[in-house]
Amino acid sequence: MPDNATRADGARVLADLNALRGIGAYKTGVHKPTFSEPHMTSLHWLAARLAEAGLAATIDGIGNVLGTSAKSGAKLLAGSHLESQNYAGWLDGPLGVVYALEAARVLNPDPAVKGAVEVAAWCDEEGHFGSFLGSRSYVGGVAEGEIDAARDRSGDRTMRQALANVGLAGRPRVLVERGRHVGYIEAHIEQGETLERGDLKIGIVTSIVGIWQYRIIFDGEQNHAGTTRMEIRKDAGLALARFCVAIDDRFPAACGPRTVWTTGRITLDPGAPSIIPGHAEMLFQMRDDDPAVIERLEELLLIIAGEVNAQGRCHVALERIRTGSPAMMDDGFQTAIAAAGAAFAGGKCVRMPSGAGHDAQVLATIMPAGMLFVPSIGGISHHWTENTADADIVTGAEVFVEACRRLLS
Amino acid sequence: MPDNATRADGARVLADLNALRGIGAYKTGVHKPTFSEPHMTSLHWLAARLAEAGLAATIDGIGNVLGTSAKSGAKLLAGSHLESQNYAGWLDGPLGVVYALEAARVLNPDPAVKGAVEVAAWCDEEGHFGSFLGSRSYVGGVAEGEIDAARDRSGDRTMRQALANVGLAGRPRVLVERGRHVGYIEAHIEQGETLERGDLKIGIVTSIVGIWQYRIIFDGEQNHAGTTRMEIRKDAGLALARFCVAIDDRFPAACGPRTVWTTGRITLDPGAPSIIPGHAEMLFQMRDDDPAVIERLEELLLIIAGEVNAQGRCHVALERIRTGSPAMMDDGFQTAIAAAGAAFAGGKCVRMPSGAGHDAQVLATIMPAGMLFVPSIGGISHHWTENTADADIVTGAEVFVEACRRLLS
Repeated sequence: MPDNATRADGARVLADLNALRGIGAYKTGVHKPTFSEPHMTSLHWLAARLAEAGLAATIDGIGNVLGTSAKSGAKLLAGSHLESQNYAGWLDGPLGVVYALEAARVLNPDPAVKGAVEVAAWCDEEGHFGSFLGSRSYVGGVAEGEIDAARDRSGDRTMRQALANVGLAGRPRVLVERGRHVGYIEAHIEQGETLERGDLKIGIVTSIVGIWQYRIIFDGEQNHAGTTRMEIRKDAGLALARFCVAIDDRFPAACGPRTVWTTGRITLDPGAPSIIPGHAEMLFQMRDDDPAVIERLEELLLIIAGEVNAQGRCHVALERIRTGSPAMMDDGFQTAIAAAGAAFAGGKCVRMPSGAGHDAQVLATIMPAGMLFVPSIGGISHHWTENTADADIVTGAEVFVEACRRLLS
Repeated sequence: MPDNATRADGARVLADLNALRGIGAYKTGVHKPTFSEPHMTSLHWLAARLAEAGLAATIDGIGNVLGTSAKSGAKLLAGSHLESQNYAGWLDGPLGVVYALEAARVLNPDPAVKGAVEVAAWCDEEGHFGSFLGSRSYVGGVAEGEIDAARDRSGDRTMRQALANVGLAGRPRVLVERGRHVGYIEAHIEQGETLERGDLKIGIVTSIVGIWQYRIIFDGEQNHAGTTRMEIRKDAGLALARFCVAIDDRFPAACGPRTVWTTGRITLDPGAPSIIPGHAEMLFQMRDDDPAVIERLEELLLIIAGEVNAQGRCHVALERIRTGSPAMMDDGFQTAIAAAGAAFAGGKCVRMPSGAGHDAQVLATIMPAGMLFVPSIGGISHHWTENTADADIVTGAEVFVEACRRLLS
């Protein structure tokens, strides 16, 4: 086991996380939408900490904070994000950023470490304006036209206006220097209950699942809810409800061990109490890291739809509106995290896919990438009650710094 | 069979209906929301026709048109409404008004008829501002405060503003003179397929069903759609879909021969594709003319809800937001319509409840009431394609006038 000089300073990590919690605090969490005042204050706070740690810090033209090192040798990129969902938790994002900062503070000055950790806070991971805009910009995946078109969730404000308001308009966007980094590592809260239920401390992420999304559209016949007899109705809403239940009944026999699926939105048209819905729509999503499983489930969706259409009461059509691409985490990164977990978390580790999306999936398209999870109390996330025990935060920091040390060796 | 002098003039009835269709025409239907310019023009058109028929015509302070007769003897009140649903059919309302006008034209001058038909066009039967405001005002059921509070469907315009705009502000509202009428009769398109399918010409309405309405509320646990395993989810949307299917599966064994039920609106909260709905609501409605049937079905709803709650995943609660009171149509009126149907429709009549609400249910609270239906092509209503064959319109008019003659005898 390494001596204290190359070990994370747990108290410092907790102090930094609490400092970030103090910026835009909401109950025990935070409210820091992208480009809000507390978000921008957090970016400047990080830039100052990076400078203190001897890194050259920049906030670029899309709001990414990047801290680069002049030290010779291998460079490992580490980071996460600083904005939050609305009225959400204090750790989703900041945990990974502060771990990365801590790794730079511990490892970069250490002459025994032949390289340096460089730190990133990717802008808008939470998708207030788009999908992974910050990390996708860094890997060269965002054209100017996409930024021109981006608006916030309300649609009231363009991203250009927001960038101008916070003084970032016209600043260049920093692009990755290909070949500079041995890879990218990110820590995050699990946002699920696997670690907590198994009394585990570290999740070694094997893959980030892909998301497939569908609009499922039902057409029947709009009619008067008082004068239309039950036997002749073509109720699109009822067809939709039966479809949801058929999915729930039949997916378990065809899915993988970790597949998840969700109907997040239902709309009946016209949506009046006295009118039989002639049209109905549902937003349906499936996630898995195995495209073969998804292929099987999509086939099952089509079979169920075919059965509805064969009955002839209502017509159902599936429109795939998002096709997932699962991201595999690098084996070497998994090995390094496992070794660090053996040293600092008593081996209380498990390999697991990530059901949520993370910037690591974007970085994984151009360099080896790895992720580690720390436990989420009650599995809660995207809510101000989100939390992780202080002791688990410290353990995670120690494992993270040690994993970085190994990846730079 | 009476001679031609006391028989409806089919050509005149069709001409009047087409004249009304020409005011606010939309494709083959009309667009005449309450207090719109074409609606007001229609009210003045009717007032002029009533005056020509020798009735004293008034448009009162809530937009009811009333035509009263100075003839001695029994008075029979007859009518319907002139406004339409948005972009809707030409007959829903005007048919009953023109039949009433025709009955007054045919019967009032006839010395053999010892009494007179009086004509009403009730304002806002279609509920642009409230629920049966015109007929309820006439029977004394609308306080000034209800009018003060009424707004149009958009909520942008108060009823007071609308009344002022059309020059009705400050006019007195006409109240029923108790004991003046032997009863109220109304004709309407069926808005269903019973008559058409049975090759029938006249529906003799036995009752107007009551509407019971419920908000059914599901509470589960909002969570991340990627990180929450299927087996621990508490998906309120899925519980709702299963509830809809349970109703559809189990109601047929408990309902009456003509019960109808409808889920017209579904809302999942928060309604995002990547969030498991923690809360869901549905608007559910049942209609029957037998409160005992409804009582049985409400009990079944509570049993199904109890089963969901016993499973413990999600909690469901029922809130009754509307309690129906079915209106029974008078036996004597039914007999008169049946006799008229035997004379003028070759007996192609059927007794049936009305699944839709009508002003007759309001009038029935203070006097004997009856209704007759004519066939709706394809059962279509509340749509501009709504229609009835001209021959069926004429047959209906003849039966209506004859029924009025018998009711005044």
